[in-house]
Amino acid sequence: MLLALSLALADEGMWLPEQVPALGDDLRRQGLGLDAATLADPAGATLGAVVSLGHCTASFVSADGLILTNGHCVSDYLESASTANHDYRLEGYLATDRRKELPAGPAARAWVTERIDDVTARVLGKLPTALDDRNRVEAIQKNVSAIVAACEKQPSRPRCQVVPIYEGREWRLVTRRELRDLRVVYAPPETVYAFGGDVDNWQWPRHCGDFAMLRAWSAPDGSSAAFADENVPYTPPHHLRLAPGGARPGEFVMIAGFPAATYRWRTADEARHAAEVRYPSGRDLFSALGAVAERAAAASKESAIRLGPSLFRYANARKNFAGMIDNFGRSDIVSAKEVQQAELQAWIAADPRRAPYGAALAELRKVVADDLAYWRRDRVYSALVQTPLLLNTAVTAYRLAFEQQFPDASRDPGFQARDRSDIADRFRSYDRILDLPSDRALMKELLQQSQALPEGQRIPPLDAWLAKSGSIQNVVDELYAATALATVDARLRLLDQKQPDFERAADPWIRLAVALDGWHRGVRAEKRVRDGALARLRPAYMEAMLKMHPGAVYPEANGTLRLSFGKVEGYAPEDAAVYLPQTTLGGMARKVRESPFDAPLRVLEEVPAAPRSRWSDPTLGDVPVNFLTTVDNTNGNSGSPTLNAHGDIVGLVFDRNWEAVAADWRYDPALTRSIHVDVRYLLWMLDEVERAQVLLAELGVR
Amino acid sequence: MLLALSLALADEGMWLPEQVPALGDDLRRQGLGLDAATLADPAGATLGAVVSLGHCTASFVSADGLILTNGHCVSDYLESASTANHDYRLEGYLATDRRKELPAGPAARAWVTERIDDVTARVLGKLPTALDDRNRVEAIQKNVSAIVAACEKQPSRPRCQVVPIYEGREWRLVTRRELRDLRVVYAPPETVYAFGGDVDNWQWPRHCGDFAMLRAWSAPDGSSAAFADENVPYTPPHHLRLAPGGARPGEFVMIAGFPAATYRWRTADEARHAAEVRYPSGRDLFSALGAVAERAAAASKESAIRLGPSLFRYANARKNFAGMIDNFGRSDIVSAKEVQQAELQAWIAADPRRAPYGAALAELRKVVADDLAYWRRDRVYSALVQTPLLLNTAVTAYRLAFEQQFPDASRDPGFQARDRSDIADRFRSYDRILDLPSDRALMKELLQQSQALPEGQRIPPLDAWLAKSGSIQNVVDELYAATALATVDARLRLLDQKQPDFERAADPWIRLAVALDGWHRGVRAEKRVRDGALARLRPAYMEAMLKMHPGAVYPEANGTLRLSFGKVEGYAPEDAAVYLPQTTLGGMARKVRESPFDAPLRVLEEVPAAPRSRWSDPTLGDVPVNFLTTVDNTNGNSGSPTLNAHGDIVGLVFDRNWEAVAADWRYDPALTRSIHVDVRYLLWMLDEVERAQVLLAELGVR
Repeated sequence: MLLALSLALADEGMWLPEQVPALGDDLRRQGLGLDAATLADPAGATLGAVVSLGHCTASFVSADGLILTNGHCVSDYLESASTANHDYRLEGYLATDRRKELPAGPAARAWVTERIDDVTARVLGKLPTALDDRNRVEAIQKNVSAIVAACEKQPSRPRCQVVPIYEGREWRLVTRRELRDLRVVYAPPETVYAFGGDVDNWQWPRHCGDFAMLRAWSAPDGSSAAFADENVPYTPPHHLRLAPGGARPGEFVMIAGFPAATYRWRTADEARHAAEVRYPSGRDLFSALGAVAERAAAASKESAIRLGPSLFRYANARKNFAGMIDNFGRSDIVSAKEVQQAELQAWIAADPRRAPYGAALAELRKVVADDLAYWRRDRVYSALVQTPLLLNTAVTAYRLAFEQQFPDASRDPGFQARDRSDIADRFRSYDRILDLPSDRALMKELLQQSQALPEGQRIPPLDAWLAKSGSIQNVVDELYAATALATVDARLRLLDQKQPDFERAADPWIRLAVALDGWHRGVRAEKRVRDGALARLRPAYMEAMLKMHPGAVYPEANGTLRLSFGKVEGYAPEDAAVYLPQTTLGGMARKVRESPFDAPLRVLEEVPAAPRSRWSDPTLGDVPVNFLTTVDNTNGNSGSPTLNAHGDIVGLVFDRNWEAVAADWRYDPALTRSIHVDVRYLLWMLDEVERAQVLLAELGVR
Repeated sequence: MLLALSLALADEGMWLPEQVPALGDDLRRQGLGLDAATLADPAGATLGAVVSLGHCTASFVSADGLILTNGHCVSDYLESASTANHDYRLEGYLATDRRKELPAGPAARAWVTERIDDVTARVLGKLPTALDDRNRVEAIQKNVSAIVAACEKQPSRPRCQVVPIYEGREWRLVTRRELRDLRVVYAPPETVYAFGGDVDNWQWPRHCGDFAMLRAWSAPDGSSAAFADENVPYTPPHHLRLAPGGARPGEFVMIAGFPAATYRWRTADEARHAAEVRYPSGRDLFSALGAVAERAAAASKESAIRLGPSLFRYANARKNFAGMIDNFGRSDIVSAKEVQQAELQAWIAADPRRAPYGAALAELRKVVADDLAYWRRDRVYSALVQTPLLLNTAVTAYRLAFEQQFPDASRDPGFQARDRSDIADRFRSYDRILDLPSDRALMKELLQQSQALPEGQRIPPLDAWLAKSGSIQNVVDELYAATALATVDARLRLLDQKQPDFERAADPWIRLAVALDGWHRGVRAEKRVRDGALARLRPAYMEAMLKMHPGAVYPEANGTLRLSFGKVEGYAPEDAAVYLPQTTLGGMARKVRESPFDAPLRVLEEVPAAPRSRWSDPTLGDVPVNFLTTVDNTNGNSGSPTLNAHGDIVGLVFDRNWEAVAADWRYDPALTRSIHVDVRYLLWMLDEVERAQVLLAELGVR
């Protein structure tokens, strides 16, 4: 763990662009062929082409706004575009001309990072030191909101976010252009992009054609606009080139993307809680929800289509949690964290001037314990207000109305004036994924979960509602008799209602939302006090760690643009076993059997000729499919371009290996690997299977 | 498949000693450092030291009769020697001096091959050509019995066997010295010799210390004798040296041993039957018996000890059948056999003079179909008369008495005068393994299985017995109320009774045995007719195969002495995965967790120092545990010495890999591997863990 602090360990780390120049000498030695300074500019030739899709990363690959990302990142869009006659997730899609590109749906977004500025002084600089924890976190939130509001008032109408780094020791303002008209240009069938399904997910060797292409469209004047007939392909400031030669074992590579969250600076107590509570209970919860969704999908084709992306998410989460549990045991992460913490305490004890750190650490442990005491309740509550879409609609709309009584900058993040149109688009998108039978079954399952919560971690308004109705079955019958919110118009109308409208509404969903959120407001207030304490204590803990081990370090992932560096390399999963870093089309074909290993016939028919195609690797004697690297990645990095020494695309990140599921907590140089799809698989598919010569030409490949 | 016929494919093949000189040039090129002619002599310096234990192979490793074999080959002996205070399978055993060596039990045998003679002319030469199938097989059996009887009349009192090779085209007489006083000198605990248990069984990477040592004792005059206090250590004609340097990857190695049976010359119909009936129904039957035995073992420690070796056999069989089913699919063995048979038919059709082969093939297919038609019934019957030991005792004794009405040479093999003392010893050995609660539960399970047999494959005496008793429960209650046969004296007395004694006995076991065997006698008579036809047709089929593909070939394994050649080599189990050919003590220690991965503490304590011990491999930097080779092996080869180019022992065979479970049907050069324990693991255990310096000295290691 402690070695993680050293700058010299180059393959670990999700680096801020601003940190790259300091790594320059090391990166040059590893093989970087670009000036490291060019990678410091988030709007430069390389990083300026990398965009966030929110849940994934993508990159521009043509001057006409073509975007390359993973197939699994566009499954929601494919589902949203599907019709009674076409399930585009199962069939895949290729637009034969630009006017036939499929709208990705109203909630789809792409964000281009334009600037990243240090706003630490503006967030923390003006805070009186004597603030109590509650006022401290509110003061920080107010400063953040003011900075965001000022940023978004600029004439270009950017979307802005202020994010903490180093546990809140520093803050950054990220200014982003938002693109709102995305269309699916090409996606292979799910049997290609998710070949091996849940069985192969998080595993190596792997054989997924996990790629897809979108196009961003803008208003005719080039400004961002929602889908409209008069829109034109967007002209991005930069786009990346594909490297049709791919990458060889040992070759230097890097990825740029938007990793969501890591836990590498959490305390030993948090690691133990993760091992003992968070992942086991998360696995159980998602197994239960997944089983409900699978039953619903098996019962109806309509439900199956609407639930498709959710089924993938449940299965992925369940397998991820199982992997976390495995890896925590295998790599003894809790003990490593305890050793780290004991070393810190010894370092503090060695010098009386370090006593304030000791006090901060002791208080941090206490606040963390308080924060985790209600984990199970908070987990079930959060699943309850997110999973059944009718309840999510009611709770979201009510919170938006409730917060309107406060000045915009003091409202909870996510419920400010700037968030209204995103919420409206999300409500519109529910039209494609809302499935009443499974919504009802998921609601019932979560009510049952709520009744299994231990004493002291109850959700009182649910208990009261149940006591009144007599049984979970009655609650569900009563709620799903009221389906007003099942129409998009009703959901959008809700966004215009005021707080008192909600509080006197008769719709049982609204009544339940008002009851739940009224209670949860108190939970949030208590949490805000702890957040204030954490905003004071985590930076102190981080400062002690940094002083104990001086040197440049990367901050936790936080959804902003990062770079990771490494090389193409396999690993040894156990004694006498070696995994090579590349798989092939021939290897994929040999794995074909029943679902989820059922590749499309039109792909399999071309596999025998693949070794003689121009996309074949001369060393492998076949078209490469997937490859392993030592680069560091996590959720949110899916779709990140894998770049060679010259900044050209050799592949896309799409997963990690089984032994690295818990790499969010600890990067193990021997075992932590990223899994990428080779760009030559994409090119072979477009060339030999899809015969998509127009697209190849747009990609600059002839 | 067809390539298997070529002599040049040196790693496939279980060669007769007499064939080795013809392989000499090829073996020299591969690295053999001995004169190939010396390996042609079964009583020579190398092969003369290799002995059969019946179920396993072993070899003499000292002038005082010390024998080296696998730990799993001595588990029955350990079980037989265990007491209320000591479970030697779990504890292991080391005799601190020769008088403390543990008797292996009355049924334990070691056979030293003294001569192998071609007796084809004596078996087949005098047969009138016009014999019908029934008379043909009886004439062959009579000739065989006469040859055996003459052989065993020699002054040295050898044990002799006459065996067919090339499907009965040729016959060999094997003359063997039988040793009847075996004692356990050293065995590690089961957690060492079967580390990883059923989970790792048939798998690579592997970490088993699968070794043990016995000593053969003889009468003071050197002649073979049963256990007696005055016995002395036996002086073998030859013994092998250990090669303390072990074997390196790529190095030439060979094994000598007693492979029991292979199916490489079976027809496509037999392969299809194996894939569709034999292995699936075998897996189901052994799963059911295994589950019954496991429940009994869980219920009582006494039962667990008595059932120990059976539990291993059930689990092994179940996993073997599952592997067969996997491999038949993975390697498409049925299709390969069908291609082979189609090629043979095309070859026959190409020349009218080959028409007799065509007729033989057609008739062979018909007889095989008849033979397999009652497979399920025959499988259940055979399990029924072998598994519950009380029924086995009754049926065996009755058949021995029944056959006495015929001249000795005409009696069924296994029930001639020469077999009586072996049967008596087996009845004595039941004293250690008979466990009435599980015997009863297994009987009940097999009765249930018999009732699930399809119409047309019933066992009529069982059906009648059940109809009379009313229920399976009643049958079992009635039978196990009579426990006379549970005592060794009663079992041995049974061997002195005559046929009429059985037929008027009141004991329900004897009555059931008489009813069952009376019916089965007819089944055997029908089978004998088919066997006569097969004795005519299989050699013709083999002859056609050999004419189509001229060249030296090895015959099917038949339990006699064979040699296999190959090299230390890993394999690629799937795309992008490579298995290296050696595992280490460090790798074993990293796998330690709950049972069956619970190595003894006294072993684990020494592991950290192993890299600095004299048994450490300089390239691996650790003591090697197991290694892979390309040599060909099957059941019966367990314990075979793995010899280097100079004929010194570098390891012992103990298993095959998962992808090679069905290698009995087809040797695949890319995937078929033998798994061996490295002699350095044995030496390290004796030296660093057991501190057994006296044994090391006897092994010639200082």
